[in-house]
Amino acid sequence: MGKGGMSHGGGEGQDGEGEENMAAWLLAVKTLRIQPFILPPLGPHDVKVQMKAVGICGSDVHHFKNMRCANFVVKKPMVIGHECAGIIEEVGSEVKFLAKGDRVALEPGISCGRCTLCKDGRYNLCPEMKCFGSPPTNGSLANQVVHPASLCFKLPDNVSLEEGAMCEPLSVGVHACRRANVSPETKVLIMGAGPIGLVTMLAARAFGAPKIVIVDIDDRRLSFAKDLGADEIIRVSTNIQDVGDEVVKIGNAMGAGVDVSFDCVGFNKTMSTALNATRPGGKVCLVGLGQSEMTVPLTPAAAREVDVVGIFRYRNTWPLCIEFLRTGKIDVKPLITHRFRFTQEEVEKAFETSARGGDAIKVMFNL
Amino acid sequence: MGKGGMSHGGGEGQDGEGEENMAAWLLAVKTLRIQPFILPPLGPHDVKVQMKAVGICGSDVHHFKNMRCANFVVKKPMVIGHECAGIIEEVGSEVKFLAKGDRVALEPGISCGRCTLCKDGRYNLCPEMKCFGSPPTNGSLANQVVHPASLCFKLPDNVSLEEGAMCEPLSVGVHACRRANVSPETKVLIMGAGPIGLVTMLAARAFGAPKIVIVDIDDRRLSFAKDLGADEIIRVSTNIQDVGDEVVKIGNAMGAGVDVSFDCVGFNKTMSTALNATRPGGKVCLVGLGQSEMTVPLTPAAAREVDVVGIFRYRNTWPLCIEFLRTGKIDVKPLITHRFRFTQEEVEKAFETSARGGDAIKVMFNL
Amino acid sequence: MGKGGMSHGGGEGQDGEGEENMAAWLLAVKTLRIQPFILPPLGPHDVKVQMKAVGICGSDVHHFKNMRCANFVVKKPMVIGHECAGIIEEVGSEVKFLAKGDRVALEPGISCGRCTLCKDGRYNLCPEMKCFGSPPTNGSLANQVVHPASLCFKLPDNVSLEEGAMCEPLSVGVHACRRANVSPETKVLIMGAGPIGLVTMLAARAFGAPKIVIVDIDDRRLSFAKDLGADEIIRVSTNIQDVGDEVVKIGNAMGAGVDVSFDCVGFNKTMSTALNATRPGGKVCLVGLGQSEMTVPLTPAAAREVDVVGIFRYRNTWPLCIEFLRTGKIDVKPLITHRFRFTQEEVEKAFETSARGGDAIKVMFNL
Amino acid sequence: MGKGGMSHGGGEGQDGEGEENMAAWLLAVKTLRIQPFILPPLGPHDVKVQMKAVGICGSDVHHFKNMRCANFVVKKPMVIGHECAGIIEEVGSEVKFLAKGDRVALEPGISCGRCTLCKDGRYNLCPEMKCFGSPPTNGSLANQVVHPASLCFKLPDNVSLEEGAMCEPLSVGVHACRRANVSPETKVLIMGAGPIGLVTMLAARAFGAPKIVIVDIDDRRLSFAKDLGADEIIRVSTNIQDVGDEVVKIGNAMGAGVDVSFDCVGFNKTMSTALNATRPGGKVCLVGLGQSEMTVPLTPAAAREVDVVGIFRYRNTWPLCIEFLRTGKIDVKPLITHRFRFTQEEVEKAFETSARGGDAIKVMFNL
Repeated sequence: MGKGGMSHGGGEGQDGEGEENMAAWLLAVKTLRIQPFILPPLGPHDVKVQMKAVGICGSDVHHFKNMRCANFVVKKPMVIGHECAGIIEEVGSEVKFLAKGDRVALEPGISCGRCTLCKDGRYNLCPEMKCFGSPPTNGSLANQVVHPASLCFKLPDNVSLEEGAMCEPLSVGVHACRRANVSPETKVLIMGAGPIGLVTMLAARAFGAPKIVIVDIDDRRLSFAKDLGADEIIRVSTNIQDVGDEVVKIGNAMGAGVDVSFDCVGFNKTMSTALNATRPGGKVCLVGLGQSEMTVPLTPAAAREVDVVGIFRYRNTWPLCIEFLRTGKIDVKPLITHRFRFTQEEVEKAFETSARGGDAIKVMFNL
Repeated sequence: MGKGGMSHGGGEGQDGEGEENMAAWLLAVKTLRIQPFILPPLGPHDVKVQMKAVGICGSDVHHFKNMRCANFVVKKPMVIGHECAGIIEEVGSEVKFLAKGDRVALEPGISCGRCTLCKDGRYNLCPEMKCFGSPPTNGSLANQVVHPASLCFKLPDNVSLEEGAMCEPLSVGVHACRRANVSPETKVLIMGAGPIGLVTMLAARAFGAPKIVIVDIDDRRLSFAKDLGADEIIRVSTNIQDVGDEVVKIGNAMGAGVDVSFDCVGFNKTMSTALNATRPGGKVCLVGLGQSEMTVPLTPAAAREVDVVGIFRYRNTWPLCIEFLRTGKIDVKPLITHRFRFTQEEVEKAFETSARGGDAIKVMFNL
Repeated sequence: MGKGGMSHGGGEGQDGEGEENMAAWLLAVKTLRIQPFILPPLGPHDVKVQMKAVGICGSDVHHFKNMRCANFVVKKPMVIGHECAGIIEEVGSEVKFLAKGDRVALEPGISCGRCTLCKDGRYNLCPEMKCFGSPPTNGSLANQVVHPASLCFKLPDNVSLEEGAMCEPLSVGVHACRRANVSPETKVLIMGAGPIGLVTMLAARAFGAPKIVIVDIDDRRLSFAKDLGADEIIRVSTNIQDVGDEVVKIGNAMGAGVDVSFDCVGFNKTMSTALNATRPGGKVCLVGLGQSEMTVPLTPAAAREVDVVGIFRYRNTWPLCIEFLRTGKIDVKPLITHRFRFTQEEVEKAFETSARGGDAIKVMFNL
Repeated sequence: MGKGGMSHGGGEGQDGEGEENMAAWLLAVKTLRIQPFILPPLGPHDVKVQMKAVGICGSDVHHFKNMRCANFVVKKPMVIGHECAGIIEEVGSEVKFLAKGDRVALEPGISCGRCTLCKDGRYNLCPEMKCFGSPPTNGSLANQVVHPASLCFKLPDNVSLEEGAMCEPLSVGVHACRRANVSPETKVLIMGAGPIGLVTMLAARAFGAPKIVIVDIDDRRLSFAKDLGADEIIRVSTNIQDVGDEVVKIGNAMGAGVDVSFDCVGFNKTMSTALNATRPGGKVCLVGLGQSEMTVPLTPAAAREVDVVGIFRYRNTWPLCIEFLRTGKIDVKPLITHRFRFTQEEVEKAFETSARGGDAIKVMFNL
């Protein structure tokens, strides 16, 4: 590997010997270039994966538009992308459960395995996490990547590579539902019908939630959510004064107390609504990161023992996501609204489409 | 009770047919009168208790000063008080585990036993809770009260009646520690060294917390906390700009990450400090109810999976409190700083003393 | 009963004018007589229910055949039956959420509400539990019963009274699944395809179990289980020597480790199979009570951190059962294989049918 | 090792200049030889540790006497020992938190970090675990070992190297207490006052257990347990007929229900006693591995919802053990009853001493 030539592989998607591995590098604001990407050597527990499907995430768009997302700043050229699936091209000497030709979905983050949080099973909080496309770690919008085999999950025959790539956003919803203990006993409120609100809704349904009410300011989004399975949709305003009335509407639509609310937006108004709407002893899960400092009625919620739990990415979610897809408990295909090829011409167009929002929910590259 | 007349008790132990039961009635702002208090009939599962020790709580002081506390409003004359212990005077026909003469601490709240929350063991959240001294339910600053036997807990010989009355405030700390899962593996930060901060500290220590750092703006309180067992004390300002520096100081004093923070004050600054100081995957327990709407960095905390849990009173805490007192794991005696008799002259003086704060931590009536 | 009006009684103890309330009294081994049953007075929190559907449980059959079940011995005539649903005839003065004419399913056990276990939400373990048809408490195979309103759960329009009565056996499966934390992440093994094995299977599916393998010695039962939704069925022997081979078969059928095993039989062989088949870190839930003393490989299971959890009846299960029935996640109707009327002629015939087993799964009275 | 400096390392297999590293090799039944032990190369995340204190565990004695322990069979010469502490001699290039000269206790098992159980934080159940002195993995009774830095825990100044070595057996007790949720609310019964019973008792006390009753057949052991802090001791027989009477004695000694029982022996009688003595809703933790197949009253325990939990070694226990030692909540020094030097002459003598039992609790090597 290293400097010496790199050989890639034939088969599906045909690469060709001698061809260089290419990736989409973020060079500056709104500037992506497909350029060579030299892979690290294949370790004994690694696999080389021919990328086949890569989705664009909101955080990718933030990087694209601002060279940053939250506290993560892109300081030097970086390969973008982290929602991905592909075909195993080569396996390291110690890899037992995967073989060339296997179709896999990739969990993007590599944790250290040595810190207290890793050893305790909360590896998503590992301070040394290296995650595809989170600066300064290169991403996966590339012809090939090298990745630990233990983070590559084989797809059943009835799950496509695009669906495999969707395991990443779906994992956010699954992790949120686990953190909030969603079960067949949980009536769920979801604030926000954007991509994250929708995957959270799909996950909550798959965990058995018998009633899901979803709230947004946009009729088109709500209509989409309804088609995707929401029991009730409620259009709300952006006016903080309306929280009281809207909480009443939510209660009426739910027909009972809200056990768990997910705020998939993260603004004062959405969080205030979530806190006030949740029954004593319930939970609010803060998923969206709209505002950093929030002005919310936290004390009255605490005095009703409404707990607030947050999430950072996900952990141990891929097997469950794949199972949900395999059994049809979750269908993510309707979320994939736009598709692009992996060419210099299309790559920026794809990101612009995703950034524009509108009717784009998930924009997907087919490589 | 029943048809026959009711006899209440006078002095130490002796009954005294004919004497009327007297109680401290809150009639108006800062207006307390010792007046007759007719008890309800003794049900088969009830006991009649001769009150011996009644403490004054912050909420009692709120009622005394404002005729309200949070959402609870005193609309008609109400007997005040709820931190109490006494001696069993009479037992109902079905009471098996208590007998006349037993010294008991009283859990003040009677839940309905029929709602979902009661049946699930979270009876403190029962919407029909009737709690001593929470309007419109009469309290326990009286010669005698009638109370369910199942809420009266026998005191061991080495636990005094005053200590028994202290089980009520201590229960707040115990419930907070349970909700936050304090154990020998938990390094604890406590914001606020007032009465609630102190009982939380004592409880955290009894649950095994190996390191407790307590923070306040008042040197006298901090010094008291140090004497009571805090490992480190930190004097802070009321300036929100200082949060960053103070979080650094807390980290240094802790010598490691904070696993659980208790905000026993409940203001923007204390909660911001608690949220920022707590390690990824830790918990913040909001105990103090200073402000209703709060402006705090909730999103960054959620993104570190720092959960916020609240408490409402307590549940099933008396047996554990008594065990802590019996074994000496907790000593509440230093908290009792002032004592008064149950006379018209002293009753308002006692409340004024408690309201003034200063060196008064717990003001106790001896009846 | 039925259309003809019936008025019941008024005052303390004495029953009313008009038709007498009749019930099926167990007088001696295999001797049931329909005789008058005087109801207790209606308390303020009680309701009087016109019984409409009563199922026969295995424990009822034990009482019928042996005048005992486990440690419960029938020492004097007792009304039998406890799986039941009916229509509200009268409500107590304090009952708010139910009204005459409401169709309800009845949770049969009344706990004390005062002991430590009740207050902690584990009321099914209450030492003073009074349960329909568990001696010496009279049961519910009667025209009418008086019962606490808080144990009567309103049925939605699309759930029949017979289905309402099935909430009782279903509750056993639901409680078992809760105790074992069955979720969409749990691959489930069920030992025994009798009535309890079947309701456990239905409950596990409703909790999201993606794969359920069920094991029995009887082809007819297995075939029924397959029709009811089992993913795989395995016929086994009663020979303890076969455990090793059968564990291999189970592993093959599961296609992965067993996360949770339910032993719905409770014999050495079934429990040994369950213990050996379960993956490290999994759980075995012992539901069936076949043998009291068991000879099983407990130590090797413990050394793989396979936990053994048991169940006693159920707690807080009715709302969830009704929700499962309402949403169609569970269909109990196929389990009701035989129906009888509430006449002296049919009552013993019904019990004989249930006792004989064979193709009888659930025998139901329509009153 | 001793005085002369020694440098190891270099390439695969080849050892370095200077003094040779020596270790205690188990060659055959009761045959130990101190012979050269070539260390693996120091990886970037490894440290080389100069061993200073190594204790002898029951499993070591099994290996010594039988060349096997449970399913682990010694098929070729193996370095013995796994309870150990020492001084850092050299650190790998990526090691940040340790430096030459640091005194450390070693957690002996290296898990794969890639399997489902590792990723879920239950790494003790990792199927690829490599543990010091569990065949075929070499142990740590050697002058030096190479070990992952993340499994070496720095000792505070007030904790000796011998105490550091005691973290291993103490970890068994700590893990058992965590699995059984021992807290200040837990009244504890311990079956067996051998080394594992004693460390479990010390751990239970440190987790706050307010009452501990310990049971054994040997007066000397019981007396030792009493001196070490047991509240009550009970001498029992080996006669299974006596279980009933002994359960009564335990109840009387406890003065209340047993919340958690630890069976640190693992025979029919001890487990039957533990199951019968534990209150409804309590737990039995099976720690001792005396018998594989057990004949016990499992069904009645299950029907009281008494759960049976097992343990395999420990996970994430070293920091807590060290904290318990540092704060004095646990004193393990009285357990160290015999000391030997690391010479050919003494090494077999030490094992013979440990195997003989008698007054030997923990036999320790000082290197």
